[in-house]
Amino acid sequence: MAYVHIVTVLAVLQFIGFGFRVAKARTRFAVAAPAVTGNPVFERHFRVQQNTLEQLIGLLPGLYLYSTYYNPVWAAALGVVYLVGREVYAFTYVKDPVKRGPGFLLTVLPIAVLLLGGLVGAVRYLIDAR
Amino acid sequence: MAYVHIVTVLAVLQFIGFGFRVAKARTRFAVAAPAVTGNPVFERHFRVQQNTLEQLIGLLPGLYLYSTYYNPVWAAALGVVYLVGREVYAFTYVKDPVKRGPGFLLTVLPIAVLLLGGLVGAVRYLIDAR
Amino acid sequence: MAYVHIVTVLAVLQFIGFGFRVAKARTRFAVAAPAVTGNPVFERHFRVQQNTLEQLIGLLPGLYLYSTYYNPVWAAALGVVYLVGREVYAFTYVKDPVKRGPGFLLTVLPIAVLLLGGLVGAVRYLIDAR
Repeated sequence: MAYVHIVTVLAVLQFIGFGFRVAKARTRFAVAAPAVTGNPVFERHFRVQQNTLEQLIGLLPGLYLYSTYYNPVWAAALGVVYLVGREVYAFTYVKDPVKRGPGFLLTVLPIAVLLLGGLVGAVRYLIDAR
Repeated sequence: MAYVHIVTVLAVLQFIGFGFRVAKARTRFAVAAPAVTGNPVFERHFRVQQNTLEQLIGLLPGLYLYSTYYNPVWAAALGVVYLVGREVYAFTYVKDPVKRGPGFLLTVLPIAVLLLGGLVGAVRYLIDAR
Repeated sequence: MAYVHIVTVLAVLQFIGFGFRVAKARTRFAVAAPAVTGNPVFERHFRVQQNTLEQLIGLLPGLYLYSTYYNPVWAAALGVVYLVGREVYAFTYVKDPVKRGPGFLLTVLPIAVLLLGGLVGAVRYLIDAR
């Protein structure tokens, strides 16, 4: 499980890093708290961070459920795809929100595999236990 | 724990489903990213998704702590109440935000039972260990 | 682990409490759902709640990974620092957003220690296993 633990920490640190970019954009574009609108580039950084939060709530349970029923090393490998995909997503979104699609898919797909793997594993377990 | 694992995946997939409805409403009502305001129906879909994220961070630890100290099958049953409650919440909120109360209670109450069950279980464990 | 479980529930209940303050501010300052802007004091309460959600996704994995590789009692103690820090953050943010820095650091630092502890522990484990 150590590989899954490392991916877990890296995914959260990446998210915290996106948060620091939001804070930096806040100063740079003079968007005073509590406002979260007012400058389009700030809003892109903010949406990248918020969307990453929405994905972490799927990634983290997925990593552990997939590890329970299948293989922690494969779970960690899918987590690495997610980490790279999020960097692509953040980079392309800030450049041009219209081009955020491919980076988004690169993180949604590994999360879907992890979650569906966990679901299939749990259902199979219940069938076998009969 | 397989029942709790299944509920975990279903709750995250339900949340991802709400996210797809936000994406659909974004196209339909022409709300271009990074904006998250501009059309009231889009905003309702967006708030349903955001509120569900806020609830998942309580539901998931609650499911596992309740399972640790009490019964995973009961935890999963409370999770099913949550799943149904969220559908009611999403349906009523998008129709008319004023009527979102009952659906909200149907998800807040099972989360409260799960979390308080975990809290009471942990405190009792510490008392018994003395 | 019972201490970590108690801190987990308290951190989520604190977050739910911030959510109730948002609901109260919504009524008090007449900000009708789905809007999340329109009154600066409401927006402060809302940002406190949202920022707490962003921190919980780091705190919770951190608590369990630190407990796995080091000590659950120390993890719980760092969690108590977080709980106090969040109250400071909420109080100062609502009074004056400019002064939210110290309370923010009081919660970011324990989360960083928990996560980095988990990361170092997992890497060490892999090195020792060779």
